[in-house]
Amino acid sequence: MEMKVLIVLAHPEPQSFNGSLARLAEETFVTGGAEVRISDLYSRQFEPDEHARHFSQRKNPIRFDVQTEQRFNHHQGTLPVDVTREIDDVLWADFVMLQFPLWWFGLPAILKGWMDRVFAYGALYTGSHCFQAGVCRGKRAMLSVTTGSPAEVCAHNGQEGDTQLILWPIHYALHYVGFSVLEPSLITGVRGGYAGNDAAIQDRYLDTRLLEQRLRLTNLDSIPVIPFNAESDWNDRRKLKPRAPVYSPFIRHQAKLLLS
Amino acid sequence: MEMKVLIVLAHPEPQSFNGSLARLAEETFVTGGAEVRISDLYSRQFEPDEHARHFSQRKNPIRFDVQTEQRFNHHQGTLPVDVTREIDDVLWADFVMLQFPLWWFGLPAILKGWMDRVFAYGALYTGSHCFQAGVCRGKRAMLSVTTGSPAEVCAHNGQEGDTQLILWPIHYALHYVGFSVLEPSLITGVRGGYAGNDAAIQDRYLDTRLLEQRLRLTNLDSIPVIPFNAESDWNDRRKLKPRAPVYSPFIRHQAKLLLS
Repeated sequence: MEMKVLIVLAHPEPQSFNGSLARLAEETFVTGGAEVRISDLYSRQFEPDEHARHFSQRKNPIRFDVQTEQRFNHHQGTLPVDVTREIDDVLWADFVMLQFPLWWFGLPAILKGWMDRVFAYGALYTGSHCFQAGVCRGKRAMLSVTTGSPAEVCAHNGQEGDTQLILWPIHYALHYVGFSVLEPSLITGVRGGYAGNDAAIQDRYLDTRLLEQRLRLTNLDSIPVIPFNAESDWNDRRKLKPRAPVYSPFIRHQAKLLLS
Repeated sequence: MEMKVLIVLAHPEPQSFNGSLARLAEETFVTGGAEVRISDLYSRQFEPDEHARHFSQRKNPIRFDVQTEQRFNHHQGTLPVDVTREIDDVLWADFVMLQFPLWWFGLPAILKGWMDRVFAYGALYTGSHCFQAGVCRGKRAMLSVTTGSPAEVCAHNGQEGDTQLILWPIHYALHYVGFSVLEPSLITGVRGGYAGNDAAIQDRYLDTRLLEQRLRLTNLDSIPVIPFNAESDWNDRRKLKPRAPVYSPFIRHQAKLLLS
């Protein structure tokens, strides 16, 4: 059965390197026999702010509570049209790739808003449908991230704050709704960190990264899954059991690097 | 000289607990003799997505590059009106407090967008004006965060992903533009985690948190500043020098907890 791929793109400029990466991914997956949908949030003019104005129906018309209205409208079938479209795409997909530049050590606001609105309570998670019992269990997700600074500055001993550590909250959110999260594709130095002002060198550098990315996406199965704790590691008050093996091996590895 | 306080509020419901916290902060600071401005992002209908449409002037009309256009428009005095207003407030303030609920392990999109657009290249940072040489040096900033889940679930061994670790990217962004970052005010369990379905117990719980918050804000000077690396810890390629004392003591502490 062919793989169903959703690429969520968050960049304001179609001709950007992020735009190229999204097109490369589409082409690579299609060539590999997959069915591909692209959610280009900027071209869709996706509105990032979760807000009462998005809800035509209200469980509580007086006081707007996000989770209350998300769940109510999900059950009524009245979630906003733009959100429903995104949810349908997520539920349809076997593999979801988020393509974005790291802005202020996190997601661009339009993609954070996609998460705030599309990962709707009732639809993509509940208190009992999360983590290994999450709605997205069995699906894979991966961040494809660019940074302006070169790799050594984004490393655990670099001044850009340790990119792997910075991605932890985003990975955790994907884990929360049930995805198996692949190790991220991190392309550093897209603003010329390696090439100084030599445009030809920088172009060659980026072309090489595109070739690598094609290879990576052609061999998705070879990308390691980020390990998280198993359900059985947590007690009924959602704390790690005393003898639980570790807090997520992924973050433990980062912690060890920081202490090295 | 009286303290100048900027409170940035990111919640879609004025009657929410976050709204109460913002009003309490305003009242507390005014009572203490400070001048206070509130940037209520939802009531201002702040647009979170950094986008070409915000810029009336363009250095490059063909290809939209965020940093290029932010710097160009800053130098031309043509940054968007809504952004200029927020920058003026940040530059005016001695103390900036970000009041928000933790959504999907990060800032609500409207507040992430405030950062993406207001921390404009050229205006609030450049390659040489950052960290200890940042535009906001001498100013203090603090996150005032609420979580739905109770404290033990937000702790380093809790299932909500370790809130202190999750705040690291946001703290690092504030550090990047030069703020002295105070330890966050973290109010957990605002969705009733302690009280089950007993509304009266939950109300008392929240009232107590408000009292504590008033005390905390009355004694800002007693709140520890989060330690980050000194400029002299980094080499000229922005990596930690071999003998630099530590990668930020704050994150080291978190790393040790994770490994404990």
